[in-house]
Amino acid sequence: MTKAVLTKTNPAMLNGVDVAALSETLNALHRQPELGAFQFRAKNAWINGGLNQSSIDGFFGAGKEETRSRPFTFAADEPPVLHGKDQGANPVEFVLHALAACMTTTMVYHAAARGLEITAVNSELEGDIDVRGFMGLADDVRKGYSEVRVKLSVEGEATPEQLAALAKMSPVYDIVSNSLPVEVVVETK
Amino acid sequence: MTKAVLTKTNPAMLNGVDVAALSETLNALHRQPELGAFQFRAKNAWINGGLNQSSIDGFFGAGKEETRSRPFTFAADEPPVLHGKDQGANPVEFVLHALAACMTTTMVYHAAARGLEITAVNSELEGDIDVRGFMGLADDVRKGYSEVRVKLSVEGEATPEQLAALAKMSPVYDIVSNSLPVEVVVETK
Repeated sequence: MTKAVLTKTNPAMLNGVDVAALSETLNALHRQPELGAFQFRAKNAWINGGLNQSSIDGFFGAGKEETRSRPFTFAADEPPVLHGKDQGANPVEFVLHALAACMTTTMVYHAAARGLEITAVNSELEGDIDVRGFMGLADDVRKGYSEVRVKLSVEGEATPEQLAALAKMSPVYDIVSNSLPVEVVVETK
Repeated sequence: MTKAVLTKTNPAMLNGVDVAALSETLNALHRQPELGAFQFRAKNAWINGGLNQSSIDGFFGAGKEETRSRPFTFAADEPPVLHGKDQGANPVEFVLHALAACMTTTMVYHAAARGLEITAVNSELEGDIDVRGFMGLADDVRKGYSEVRVKLSVEGEATPEQLAALAKMSPVYDIVSNSLPVEVVVETK
């Protein structure tokens, strides 16, 4: 069990995380495990060529529907060498952003829950991809990244080993490093 | 072999994709497979609590370093129910954006290469996640999504089966649905 441990010596806020509120959440999830069920959503509309835009707004979580004050919108495009007009980061670059953000937040939250102060986190990510896979030119080349490397530079009290273990509790690390069922339905008009 | 096929009846531009240029790329990759090796990158800096920001700029591809006219930057945060201040979409929502964008672009590009016209694509994605996994409260609950559902609504000439097959050539679909080696290094100061 890798359960987060809160001690009485923890301050109410640590690493910008309200540790007291986080503790209440953990207790609530113990009492009512069904509150842990979340559903996140995105809508996307194609614009032209490699350009499209997603809108992210409401979600379900902690037993109810939640809305945002405004939707978050993100364009995705491809650079000219991949036949786009570079009006946004490309989809595989967004994967690196999601992974960096998630590993950082996960490490910071879990450090806070354990009373470990962190004062800075910077990360650099690289993903190797052979576009012959995506292009359908080589069956032995996978379509996505063949490898991703994450380097986290942290200022804080914990050891690199502790911090790596906390960062690897990240949901996006799990999504990327392990397989996941993705159901695809296409309807035409 | 799912190699893209270009016929003489293809127009130069289809679905906003320069099919003639795409054909040249495919021929170049046949002649020089090493041009397929790309490396994408992201840098991320933690700000506070669940808030951090990524910067995405240069990459390596088609045998050389490429720069952008400006970096793309994206904040990530958590909603209040997950102890953030909702100043950005959260990391697992960015995964849905990346997946929607990639499946759309992949389908549109491959349709263009096959001479199939597409006039509209809209998609809706849902991802189920039990946050008890991330919180370390249940070893039998995975930390990331347990399932993702993608619904693509397409206006065009192809059949749903054809379009689904093209969309599944997406690199992010591969990254999310299959496992991938992720190397994590933490250094402390």
